[in-house]
Amino acid sequence: MQNQNKQVLVPVGDGCEEIETVAIIDILRRANIDVTFASIKPVEDEKAPLIVGRSGISFICDTYLTETVLKQQFDLIALPGGLSNAQSLGTHQPLLDRLRQQQEEGKWIAAICASPQLVLDKNGFMINSTGTCHPAHVQDYKGQFSEDRVHVSNKFITSRSPGTAIEFALALVELLVDQHTAVQLAKSLLVKR
Amino acid sequence: MQNQNKQVLVPVGDGCEEIETVAIIDILRRANIDVTFASIKPVEDEKAPLIVGRSGISFICDTYLTETVLKQQFDLIALPGGLSNAQSLGTHQPLLDRLRQQQEEGKWIAAICASPQLVLDKNGFMINSTGTCHPAHVQDYKGQFSEDRVHVSNKFITSRSPGTAIEFALALVELLVDQHTAVQLAKSLLVKR
Ligand SMILES: [Cu+]
Repeated sequence: MQNQNKQVLVPVGDGCEEIETVAIIDILRRANIDVTFASIKPVEDEKAPLIVGRSGISFICDTYLTETVLKQQFDLIALPGGLSNAQSLGTHQPLLDRLRQQQEEGKWIAAICASPQLVLDKNGFMINSTGTCHPAHVQDYKGQFSEDRVHVSNKFITSRSPGTAIEFALALVELLVDQHTAVQLAKSLLVKR
Repeated sequence: MQNQNKQVLVPVGDGCEEIETVAIIDILRRANIDVTFASIKPVEDEKAPLIVGRSGISFICDTYLTETVLKQQFDLIALPGGLSNAQSLGTHQPLLDRLRQQQEEGKWIAAICASPQLVLDKNGFMINSTGTCHPAHVQDYKGQFSEDRVHVSNKFITSRSPGTAIEFALALVELLVDQHTAVQLAKSLLVKR
């Protein structure tokens, strides 16, 4: 039997914002979405894919972002923030190529915090779409900007900070699964409305 | 020069709720509080203290919860939730002894989600204090109960779920540092008020 679950890729580097990273993965998995949590650091054989977040929390990712992973189909690629993580994601050529492919295929791309500006806006993804980002990056944002906490424009979902991360993750559930699932999850998590 | 930072212990076992665990550590560290993230699993020499959360996210903790760690002074011990984590914390005798010492010294103890009931209430810590917990555990809660999202009673701070975790962590900052720091952090994180 084929796996009907939606497939999501969450690529991260050192300095990722931990609340944003975990809110995306935890909440999507609670909605029965398959999430691949992938380190963008160079593969070290025999070594687990370790990532250290901006507040010093260490994660072992599910995998490195190998060619095999990059060749998989994903319904959504979601980019957490954190300044140095966003800088790394925004200059990682294999990831940028994969995001370009995702855009050309008309599939979802999501980014929060520093990543909408440093990964998407800076690399020309947002030319025909509106986005939001962390207040510290608004001055550098070249494209059409929104003040929304979570903004959907064409196939881009963007958001602003750790304090908007749960709303962002629930919006991803609504887009990938349905509104009922997102509302039920928000209720069970006691999310403030 | 002596380190004037407040000291906080966050003990966890497998099955911890990832958003709760990370919100506490990330937000306290942003307030310049020293956080020790400790695995309660048996020490395995040469092996990093790996913990796997309820949604499958793997963490490398800062340390195991060794006797050396248990002998340190902490201004606060904060217990994340997640059902099997709370069950493990609530039956870990060295941790329960250390919590009893913390209570006798009149120092802060915090718990969220399943932990207020399965660690604190069930083990008799809440006899003279009021607490809250995850809705699923309210029926088993024997002590005085509050419906607050974050409740402070004597030296206990309790809260309810992943959706209240950021408010909970900000309340800990307010109690350990000051209100100004908590309000500034809430603003910079774009927390919904
Ligand atoms: Cu829970």
